[in-house]
Amino acid sequence: MAFEKVKRSENYSEWYNNLVKNADLAEHSAVKGCMVIKPYGYAIWEKMQQALDKMFKETGHSNAYFPLFVPKNLFEKEEKNAEGFAKECAVVTHYRLKNDPDNPGKLIVDPNSKLEEELIVRPTSEAIIWNTYKNWIQSYRDLPILLNQWANVVRWEMRTRLFLRTAEFLWQEGHTAHATKEEALAETKQMLDVYAKFAEGFMAVPVIRGVKSENERFAGADDTYCIEGMMQDGKALQMGTSHFLGQNFAKAFDVKFQDKNSKLEYVWATSWGVSTRLMGALIMVHSDDEGLVLPPALAPIHVVIVPVFRTDEELNQVTETALAIKKDLEKLGLTVKYDNRDTQKPGFKFAEWELKGVPVRIALGPRDLQNGVAEVARRDTKTKESVPLNGLAAHIHGMMETIQSALYEKALAYRTAKTWEVNTWEEFVDVIENREGFALAHWDGTGETEEKIKEMTKATIRCIPFDAKEETGACILSGKPSSKRVVFAKAY
Amino acid sequence: MAFEKVKRSENYSEWYNNLVKNADLAEHSAVKGCMVIKPYGYAIWEKMQQALDKMFKETGHSNAYFPLFVPKNLFEKEEKNAEGFAKECAVVTHYRLKNDPDNPGKLIVDPNSKLEEELIVRPTSEAIIWNTYKNWIQSYRDLPILLNQWANVVRWEMRTRLFLRTAEFLWQEGHTAHATKEEALAETKQMLDVYAKFAEGFMAVPVIRGVKSENERFAGADDTYCIEGMMQDGKALQMGTSHFLGQNFAKAFDVKFQDKNSKLEYVWATSWGVSTRLMGALIMVHSDDEGLVLPPALAPIHVVIVPVFRTDEELNQVTETALAIKKDLEKLGLTVKYDNRDTQKPGFKFAEWELKGVPVRIALGPRDLQNGVAEVARRDTKTKESVPLNGLAAHIHGMMETIQSALYEKALAYRTAKTWEVNTWEEFVDVIENREGFALAHWDGTGETEEKIKEMTKATIRCIPFDAKEETGACILSGKPSSKRVVFAKAY
Repeated sequence: MAFEKVKRSENYSEWYNNLVKNADLAEHSAVKGCMVIKPYGYAIWEKMQQALDKMFKETGHSNAYFPLFVPKNLFEKEEKNAEGFAKECAVVTHYRLKNDPDNPGKLIVDPNSKLEEELIVRPTSEAIIWNTYKNWIQSYRDLPILLNQWANVVRWEMRTRLFLRTAEFLWQEGHTAHATKEEALAETKQMLDVYAKFAEGFMAVPVIRGVKSENERFAGADDTYCIEGMMQDGKALQMGTSHFLGQNFAKAFDVKFQDKNSKLEYVWATSWGVSTRLMGALIMVHSDDEGLVLPPALAPIHVVIVPVFRTDEELNQVTETALAIKKDLEKLGLTVKYDNRDTQKPGFKFAEWELKGVPVRIALGPRDLQNGVAEVARRDTKTKESVPLNGLAAHIHGMMETIQSALYEKALAYRTAKTWEVNTWEEFVDVIENREGFALAHWDGTGETEEKIKEMTKATIRCIPFDAKEETGACILSGKPSSKRVVFAKAY
Repeated sequence: MAFEKVKRSENYSEWYNNLVKNADLAEHSAVKGCMVIKPYGYAIWEKMQQALDKMFKETGHSNAYFPLFVPKNLFEKEEKNAEGFAKECAVVTHYRLKNDPDNPGKLIVDPNSKLEEELIVRPTSEAIIWNTYKNWIQSYRDLPILLNQWANVVRWEMRTRLFLRTAEFLWQEGHTAHATKEEALAETKQMLDVYAKFAEGFMAVPVIRGVKSENERFAGADDTYCIEGMMQDGKALQMGTSHFLGQNFAKAFDVKFQDKNSKLEYVWATSWGVSTRLMGALIMVHSDDEGLVLPPALAPIHVVIVPVFRTDEELNQVTETALAIKKDLEKLGLTVKYDNRDTQKPGFKFAEWELKGVPVRIALGPRDLQNGVAEVARRDTKTKESVPLNGLAAHIHGMMETIQSALYEKALAYRTAKTWEVNTWEEFVDVIENREGFALAHWDGTGETEEKIKEMTKATIRCIPFDAKEETGACILSGKPSSKRVVFAKAY
C-alpha cells in the first residue's frame, strides 16, 4: 500500500487528513475550500442519507426542493440570520460570459449581464423557504408544514478541512411551520432525538443532548438544541442542531394564519440539519492507525473475502466455496466483496480492506477448505478466529451486531474516561489543556464569562445538557452562583 | 376544488401550467427562473431517482460528488463546451456582504471581497470532473472510471417553464473515462439504453433512440445519442442524452494514461444525463383534463381508499374493512392512502385524487360491505367496477401491471397515429403545421438545410433513429440524395 501511516498519538490532525485521503473518502478540489467526495466516501454518505431519510419520513416529513439562490432583499429580511451569514456568502452578480477581445480562447464576465439584484448562494434556506411558506399558509388547516430538503449549501470559509469545514457541503435542512409554540418546541425536540438516535444507533457515536448558550445559538433562533460527540483527541464535534425559531421568520416574512377562532397569528417555526460533517465525526471517533473503522450499520461493504492461493487450481477450489459463502451472507442482507484480484498478494489486500474499514474479513485457503473452516478477522478489535464453514454466515451476521455495539461501548468508555467534573479554575484548565477532554463545570450563565473563558483557554460551552442535574455551585471563573454544570471543551 | 380546469384541446400550454400548479407539483419561486419543487412533485422525482440510481449501479457505476463551482480558467479549457454554455452562466464574483452604510438593516456586496478568479456555477460538470480525473488516471489499471453525480445545475434561461426549462434544475450526470474508443462508444450506447428502458418501463413513454445531427450535438461532444418522446400536442421532448466525448476533454485537460504497452494515450470519455425535465414529459404524455395520470411504477400513492358514510357508526364500520384492505395491499408492495377526512365529501376527494393522478381509487360504503364488494375505479380509463372484497388486493395488484402497460400502449398508439412518412415539402409542412406530429423525412445531411428548415417551419431534426432503414430518397428541401429518413418535429 502506498499508505504513509501517521499515528493518531503523534499527530491527530495529520492522521485524519491522511486517512481521508488514503481511504479514498474525499480530496481537495481546484475550487478553494470545496471538496470532491470520492465514490467510497460518498457510498458511506448515501448510507447515512438513507437511514436519516427513513427516520424523517417515519416522523411525518416529506422532501421538497427550494432554489439554490436567495435574492439579497429576502436574505436580509431576518436581520440576525442575515448578520450571522453575511460574512461568508458567495454572491452571484452576473449571468453571462463573453469572449475576451484581448485573449483569443479566453472568456471574461460580460459587464452587460450584471444582475439588477445580487443572488446569494444559499448558506441555509430559511429566507427563501419562509418567503415561499408565506403563500402556502393562510389558515390553521394549512399547518403544520413538515418539510425537509437534501441540498448543497455554501459558506465561504478561509480555513477548511475535508468534511469538517468546507466552503460547499452537503446536508439536509428540515423546515417546519406550526400553529403553536408548544408544537414547534416538541418538533425541535423530536428532531434532536432523531439525530441522537441516528448518531448512537447507526454511527455508534454516543452524544450529549443539550441546548446551546446564547453565544453559540444559530443566527435567527430563539433556542438551538444540539448533539455533541467526543473525538479521539478529546475535542468536541457538534454533530447536529435543531433550532426553535420562534416567530422570528414569520415576522420577518409576514407569515400569519387564521386560527380556529379566526384570529390572525404569526406562525411558529423550527429548522434542523446535519451535514457531511458527520463523515468527519464517523472517521474521527472509530478509526485507528491502520485506517478507517466503520460501524456495520453504515459500511458500504460488510464483509470482504480474500482467497489465499498459489495455483489457479487452488484459486478455483477456493472460489467455489467463497461464492457460496458470499451468497449465504447476501441472503442475510449483508454486502460482500470477493477480492479475487490476481495482481495483489493477500497481505496487501488485508491492509487495503483494513484501511477501508470493512468490518469483517474472511480469508480462505486450500488448508481451510480441508479443515472445513475459514479465518474470520474483526476490523475493530483485530482479533482472528477459525470458524467452521457450517454455520459461517449466521455467525458473521451475528458479529455485525456485536461489532456495532462494541464500537458504541468503546466510544462511550472513552468519553466517560475523558470527562471530568471540575470545581476550580485550576482543575478546569488542567482538563482543557493537559488531559484534553470534556469539563463539566459550573458557569454563571453570562456571555461575558463564556467569552473570557474562550479567550483564555479556547474552550467553549458545547451545551447545557438536558439531563444536567440541579445542584448549587459556583462559576469556575467568576465564582458567581450556578445551578447546573455545563459541558466545556475545545471543539472542531 | 379550487381547480380552474383548462382543456388540453383548448390551450395545451395553459393546461400544462395549470396542472403543474394545481396538482401541487411545482411553482415559480422568488428567484427568476428557479422553481420550488413541492412535496408531491418531489415524491415522484424521488421515485425516478431511485429507479435510475438502481439501474446505474447495476451497470457498474458509483456515485460521487464534485464542486458546485467551476473556476473560469477550467471552464474555458474545452473551447466548444465553454462556448456552448458561456451565454447562460451564473457567475460568482464576491464572497462577502457587509452592512450598507446608507441604509441601516440592509446589506451590500463588500467590494473588498472580490474573487481573484470568478467562479461559474456549474451548468454541467465536465470541466471540473476532467480536471479531477487528471490526478486519478495514470495507467490503464486506473480505467475505466464509471461515476455518476446527482446534483443541481444552473443554466441562465430567459424564458422558463416549470420542469421543462428552468434556470436551476436537478439532474444526474454520468462521467466515465475509458482506455479505448470502442469501450467509450459501448458505454455511450449502454447508458442511452438504460434511459430508454427507464422511459418505457417506468414512465410508460415510448421513445425513439437515435443520434443528434451536428447542429444539435452537446457542446464538446463528438456524438450525442438521445431519446425523444412525443407529447400529447404532437411536439417532441428530448428526454435524455448520452454523449460520446471522444478525447476532447482528455486533450483539453491533458489526461493521458499508460497503456499495456507503456505507450501514453489520451483517455476516452462519455457523459450522460437526465433531469427534472422528465417530470414535464411524464405529465404531458399521460395526463388529461381531470389532472395528472401517473404510471404505477412512479406513483407515490398507488391506491386511495375513500370511505362513503353518513354517520360515525358507518364510518367506523367502513374503516375497519378499509384498513384491512390497506394492510393487504401494503403486503403486496403498494402504497395506500386512506382518506378519512371528515371535512370533505367523497365527490371532492374523488376529484382531488384524480387531479393527483393516483392510479386506482377504492370507494367503500355500508352497502358495499353488505354486498361484500368495493367500487374500484381506474384513473387512466375512468372505468369503474364492483369487485368482491375476497381477493380484492390481488385484483388491484394485477391492475397495476395492466395500467402500466395500457398507458404505454396508449402513448405508443398516439405517437404512431401522429407520425407520418413524408416525401414532399408540401407534405412536410402539412405534418409540421397542421397535423402536428413527427415527420419522417429524407434530409441531405447538411447543417445548412437543417437550419433553413428550422427557420421556415420551427421544426428541428430530433434525431437520426438508430433503426432507420436504408433507402434511397431525396431531401425534402434540397432534393439532394439521402439514404435514410430522420425525425423532424417541433420540440420543447
